[in-house]
Amino acid sequence: MVTPFSRRVGDTMDSFIMSLVDVAARPGMISFATGLPDNSLFDTEGLARAVSEILAEDPYGPLQYDSASGYIPLRKRIARRCRDKFGFDVSYEDVFMTNGSQECFDQLGKMFLDRGDRMVVENPGYLGAIQSFSAYGPEFIGVDMTPEGVDTRQLAAALAERPKLFYSIPNHQNPSGTSYSEDVRKRVTDAVRGSGCLLIEDDAYGELGYGGRVGRTMKSMLPDETVMCGSFSKTISPGMRVGWMIVPEWMREAAGKSIESSFLQSNTFCQKVIDRFMEDNDYDRYLDGLRRGYMEKKRIFMDALQDNLPSTMRWNDPDGGMFIWLRTPDGTDSTELFELLIERGLVVMPGKPFHTRGGANTLRLNFATPSEEQIADGTAILGRACRELFPE
Amino acid sequence: MVTPFSRRVGDTMDSFIMSLVDVAARPGMISFATGLPDNSLFDTEGLARAVSEILAEDPYGPLQYDSASGYIPLRKRIARRCRDKFGFDVSYEDVFMTNGSQECFDQLGKMFLDRGDRMVVENPGYLGAIQSFSAYGPEFIGVDMTPEGVDTRQLAAALAERPKLFYSIPNHQNPSGTSYSEDVRKRVTDAVRGSGCLLIEDDAYGELGYGGRVGRTMKSMLPDETVMCGSFSKTISPGMRVGWMIVPEWMREAAGKSIESSFLQSNTFCQKVIDRFMEDNDYDRYLDGLRRGYMEKKRIFMDALQDNLPSTMRWNDPDGGMFIWLRTPDGTDSTELFELLIERGLVVMPGKPFHTRGGANTLRLNFATPSEEQIADGTAILGRACRELFPE
Repeated sequence: MVTPFSRRVGDTMDSFIMSLVDVAARPGMISFATGLPDNSLFDTEGLARAVSEILAEDPYGPLQYDSASGYIPLRKRIARRCRDKFGFDVSYEDVFMTNGSQECFDQLGKMFLDRGDRMVVENPGYLGAIQSFSAYGPEFIGVDMTPEGVDTRQLAAALAERPKLFYSIPNHQNPSGTSYSEDVRKRVTDAVRGSGCLLIEDDAYGELGYGGRVGRTMKSMLPDETVMCGSFSKTISPGMRVGWMIVPEWMREAAGKSIESSFLQSNTFCQKVIDRFMEDNDYDRYLDGLRRGYMEKKRIFMDALQDNLPSTMRWNDPDGGMFIWLRTPDGTDSTELFELLIERGLVVMPGKPFHTRGGANTLRLNFATPSEEQIADGTAILGRACRELFPE
Repeated sequence: MVTPFSRRVGDTMDSFIMSLVDVAARPGMISFATGLPDNSLFDTEGLARAVSEILAEDPYGPLQYDSASGYIPLRKRIARRCRDKFGFDVSYEDVFMTNGSQECFDQLGKMFLDRGDRMVVENPGYLGAIQSFSAYGPEFIGVDMTPEGVDTRQLAAALAERPKLFYSIPNHQNPSGTSYSEDVRKRVTDAVRGSGCLLIEDDAYGELGYGGRVGRTMKSMLPDETVMCGSFSKTISPGMRVGWMIVPEWMREAAGKSIESSFLQSNTFCQKVIDRFMEDNDYDRYLDGLRRGYMEKKRIFMDALQDNLPSTMRWNDPDGGMFIWLRTPDGTDSTELFELLIERGLVVMPGKPFHTRGGANTLRLNFATPSEEQIADGTAILGRACRELFPE
């Protein structure tokens, strides 16, 4: 006999992303679809050395339980980086380690959303986070993205509806690649201040600005009403699942209790490895290498798009991150293109699932995962298909 | 301005356990309080070798994203162990890896409990799990533990109230150390069958029976209505946070979606290390060594209790696991003893927080964490305090 599920199971949106992981894994398939970082940019030797060092110094510590809120030296390191690089002071006690930043979204949904509460999301917005929040049954209000960031007039109207949360990616947004202008950051934080809405600033790609960090952090502009989420998934290793959230002090006790009740603590082993890796290396220099690697990869990809795509297609030139946002002609639907590409051995990510409305003519391309050869072959496949479906 | 929390934050019970971790960490403090495994029984060399091997073979794989449901070779290994040792066949696709078994409880609460739903727990029951479920606002129905396991007459009455879940630890229960008799296992599974209640069989200590596994798994007796939860926290390493749940096939899709939306996936690195460790070693032989180690530690602890405690105190002799369950005289309250012990440098775990009713005169003692010297000193402190408060 079957036990009835909670309403959360029905409320949770399907995610297109993980189903594409399986498609992308088919032999011979080229993938521009998922959010995997470039393997060749991992510092495998540096991480292996960090593992050896921590096990040689204390073979028991990395294997044992640790503090529920996370490994204290790593939390202090993140707090120092906030002060030195992100423009705000925070106690390490307000830095909570999670199993990747996806778990921050789950924790924030769990802590704030009763079914039927309102929440603001960007349109388009990051599907994985929106799926995570959807389990708690909020009513989503989509606010359009412009080339300067979120539309602040729409945001003001949305805030009038008393939402609990606003989830934003101000730097190199997934999926659109857009970064908020300084003016938009100021207007967003001014609008949120005193509204009763909590601003969630997802900084997943913030360290991957090709020319360094873009813009001030909104956490520094509105510290008591912003949770900043971060992750080592795009900078050091996604498989280690080490993310964090930086909360206002009034959330400290609730966040600690929620984390403890949900998963006790993040894994000690990988937190210690990453802390040691950052101790052993000049992290900013390391990040510079990463940024140069991604920028070069983007240039190759952009050149290949230029060479292969018909003039009916448009795309952006991001200043960081790992995605290019592609548009088929206005009024068209990218679904047919998506399906044709799979038949021909290329998987891309349709843009529509990232939208609360519209977006039928968009696609997200990840240039970090494919090799140069795959970029050449994949963009050629893409170009031929676009010419067939959307002729000049 | 502060954003109001969801009802879950108020519904989540406080856990006494983590606050005691901080008390236990005070310099000079002896701890019989928490659930930490014995450091000296970790196979630190074997694990370090497994780390070196996986990084030498494929330096990228352990750092990269993997399947949301968990590393497939490890899930297949667990499925084989179910067939060979636990008496039931299961597809690896119904084995879902989590960040320790605490996260199983959170996932199961999230998937099944709407606020106000009923759920059955053992009395006493494992506080950490009950705290995890409490976030989803169930009405708990406590069913007393007897020396043979849960009271099956009380369970039948509880099932008549149409609970969604029954959370049980049939082997070496935390906190009481009790294992269910074969007769109780049969009566429990017969009662749950067809009731619409899902049986959660927490096997956290199942591999730590001193004389081998005790009793049949309830999952083997009631496969379609049981979720079995397991963990490497008590056998290989708690810091690696690798647990799992084995679900009936009708839950597969919902479990996959819930895990993906909550935390994307468990950490690839530690799953691969543990899989390799099990590949390299004879796991049953390894477990035998562990069991002998714990049995020997228990014997030392029992002897010390016998030598030090007055005849007014009673305690059990567990057949596995890492806890001894101590009772002060009927009608007394162990709170005063607990507080006196902290003053004198010993921290123990009061039994009352594990109870839905009663239990004021109980205490839980962990014999795995303290050294032999700490056992001698700690039981001497305990004995003196007991003589003062509960004279013969």
